Amino acid sequence: MEHVKKYVEEHKDRFLEELFELIRIPSISSESEHKDDMLKTAEKWKEFILAAGADKAEVMPTEGNPVVYGEKIIDPKLPTVIVYGHYDVMPVDPIDLWKSKPFEPEVRDGHIWARGADDDKGQAFMHAKAFELMVKTNTLPCNVKFMIEGEEEIGSPSLGKFCEENKELLKGDIILVSDTGMIAKDIPSITTGLRGLAYMEVEVTGPNHDLHSGLFGGAVANPINILTKMIASLQDENNHITIPGFYDDVLVVSDEERAEMGKAPFDVEEYKKAVDVAELLGEKGYSTMERTGIRPALDVNGIWGGYTGEGAKTVIPSKAYAKISMRLVPDQDHKKIAELFQKHFENIAPGCVKVKVQDLHGGYAYVSPTDMIAYKAADKAYTATFNKKPVPVRSGGSIPIISTFEKILGTKSILMGFGLESDAIHSPNENYPLFNFYKGIETIPYFYKYYVEMMAG
Amino acid sequence: MEHVKKYVEEHKDRFLEELFELIRIPSISSESEHKDDMLKTAEKWKEFILAAGADKAEVMPTEGNPVVYGEKIIDPKLPTVIVYGHYDVMPVDPIDLWKSKPFEPEVRDGHIWARGADDDKGQAFMHAKAFELMVKTNTLPCNVKFMIEGEEEIGSPSLGKFCEENKELLKGDIILVSDTGMIAKDIPSITTGLRGLAYMEVEVTGPNHDLHSGLFGGAVANPINILTKMIASLQDENNHITIPGFYDDVLVVSDEERAEMGKAPFDVEEYKKAVDVAELLGEKGYSTMERTGIRPALDVNGIWGGYTGEGAKTVIPSKAYAKISMRLVPDQDHKKIAELFQKHFENIAPGCVKVKVQDLHGGYAYVSPTDMIAYKAADKAYTATFNKKPVPVRSGGSIPIISTFEKILGTKSILMGFGLESDAIHSPNENYPLFNFYKGIETIPYFYKYYVEMMAG
Repeated sequence: MEHVKKYVEEHKDRFLEELFELIRIPSISSESEHKDDMLKTAEKWKEFILAAGADKAEVMPTEGNPVVYGEKIIDPKLPTVIVYGHYDVMPVDPIDLWKSKPFEPEVRDGHIWARGADDDKGQAFMHAKAFELMVKTNTLPCNVKFMIEGEEEIGSPSLGKFCEENKELLKGDIILVSDTGMIAKDIPSITTGLRGLAYMEVEVTGPNHDLHSGLFGGAVANPINILTKMIASLQDENNHITIPGFYDDVLVVSDEERAEMGKAPFDVEEYKKAVDVAELLGEKGYSTMERTGIRPALDVNGIWGGYTGEGAKTVIPSKAYAKISMRLVPDQDHKKIAELFQKHFENIAPGCVKVKVQDLHGGYAYVSPTDMIAYKAADKAYTATFNKKPVPVRSGGSIPIISTFEKILGTKSILMGFGLESDAIHSPNENYPLFNFYKGIETIPYFYKYYVEMMAG
Repeated sequence: MEHVKKYVEEHKDRFLEELFELIRIPSISSESEHKDDMLKTAEKWKEFILAAGADKAEVMPTEGNPVVYGEKIIDPKLPTVIVYGHYDVMPVDPIDLWKSKPFEPEVRDGHIWARGADDDKGQAFMHAKAFELMVKTNTLPCNVKFMIEGEEEIGSPSLGKFCEENKELLKGDIILVSDTGMIAKDIPSITTGLRGLAYMEVEVTGPNHDLHSGLFGGAVANPINILTKMIASLQDENNHITIPGFYDDVLVVSDEERAEMGKAPFDVEEYKKAVDVAELLGEKGYSTMERTGIRPALDVNGIWGGYTGEGAKTVIPSKAYAKISMRLVPDQDHKKIAELFQKHFENIAPGCVKVKVQDLHGGYAYVSPTDMIAYKAADKAYTATFNKKPVPVRSGGSIPIISTFEKILGTKSILMGFGLESDAIHSPNENYPLFNFYKGIETIPYFYKYYVEMMAG
């Protein structure tokens, strides 16, 4: 496998330049003003897949942003790897906290700094380049299909239907995804679990117009005060979520498995230092890794209402809003959870306000078995390039579409993520170490090799 | 007094045109970009006072926005009425709820629609015109001094010092103010009480940067979740404020006085209808009028944090903020309350966050005795023009500077407000009925007449 390191070394500058071309298009899927950018990014991906050696590639329409599909079929009898990734990115606010412009990528201190540097342009692009490497060096051992979507950051609302309609086209043996992280720079890991998600928006209406808080304060319910009470009541003093029925379908993880999980390297002091907090906070009775790995959570992702400008304005606003999301674990059903949330939120609303609850999006949790061939192949690949056996980890994040793939296509996914916690994905100053970018391109061909060998028996 | 109605009738169109000139300058004191507009508005006021017949008028600098001072001394032995008002206005957001532009005044359905139409450009300008009326018809019975400030909506931070430094200049017998309301269009009222105010801003910091709510949700404290818990805990299930010591200095109003207050005309169903709420909410054990008149209140005037744009962003923000104000009653000291709030807010903050508390501004409550001459004169004046005896009311609002006047200048104020609840002051679509505007100009000369007669014995 000498050719791998050599090819990466010879083409590393071009790889970076090409990635920058992708990053420069501000493909923020949650903001409708970027609709054109989504198309541009998809077209760019198509070009890169074709240039890398695909037999064909096309930008396929969906009800939302298009999916980039590409393939190289070398022998129908050989296994088929489906590479899944996404070309859309998160919004960039608060923009003033960025040290360099989010869509003008630059390299500083050995890191790529830009929105999408890691999530998921940087990580997905490693697969385009690893594929190119295998094609150009005549070492591609199986068929490859690319499925790069543009709506992952808004919950992949169109991809389920796209899969339903293209089952034949998307037939394959394993879905290979790099959209997760590793424990640390020198500790490779394979994500064996993902949490599900139910993302809600709530609106609380008090009076029908903004009121003077002097004249009405104390007599008319203030929708912000009410909203804070309602949100506060969603978790009890043990940080247990109080929505009736919320935990009904939570799969209890055995003490044995929890003990096994507890062996993963984790330094709580380092963790606290990384986010600069004096104390952690989470559900009573569970460790930090368990709180994100095997337990659900409820977070207010945004809240707004009333006067938020400079100085003081004495107002009782008519409305207050919050975006509230819940991370789910097997076997919680995000649709059922969204309904339970809505019913509960309406139930606890006092008669002095009106509430509206909207289900913004959701997805199922996913568990990847460590005894499947793809897991074993990934394990061997990391071991080959990092000289270290990777650690199986349950991540707190969600890639809702992963469980949808299994439901619709019947295909399992293997999550080979190369990101780091310090990559600040979804935050200002997102970055991706060059080391991880190149190491990823290097590790992927090993996965193909071992996977095809093991599949052949 | 036939000349009064006649003069108003003859000049009513010009009065309105002149008021519109004032309104068109967007003198929002809380937004620093309007600094120049403050000066322009002050200069405009100076012109109007001079044109109305003052001996002199000037724009006097303060540490903040200037004060417009003007006077007409007809005889030092006669009483002196000090007219207080303010030329600054509230911000206009949410701007999209306005039916016409806030600084382009227009008359629709017999109302003036604009920011400041009532509060306080419309109401203060009535005094300039009533003064003009008395001067031009040779009926001014005493000396008049105008003191029109530009910082009332941000708590009059410079006016206390201005009064200290100009005690001699501001000597007078009564301060006459129109910056409050009447019970209804056909029920004139005199405001005999104003609440004090302590206005705070709080900042809650969790992690040092925004985090991905999937990866960290459930393990790292979310500052919005924490802020909602902290705010929710500030009031108990009876809407009693829980800050230790908060009620220590609240003057208990006797059952007798409460019974007297209870006689004021008030229709709870009309009140609910006006703001379109199914139920009211306030401190247990008190009526609606008592809740705003004699009891303190706590309102969140603004809250913000995290992602508030379109769609979904799965973020745990680094910071969350709120503007929280407390309306105070005699004898609560706003400085002491601000300290109690700060100490309590810091005390209840869990170890997983850092909090910052800022005292934005404050003021004392004020009570105006109904047995003073000015009250009796106002009572007679309203009776003359409305054919109805005015009702004494304790308002929930605050004009912090009123109690400062008494402390520094030793002068009481009489609050002859002509606004209506439906004027939507501080809100979108602020308006002021032409009826009230002209009726105010008509009533004020009666006050001067009766006040000077009664002062003479």
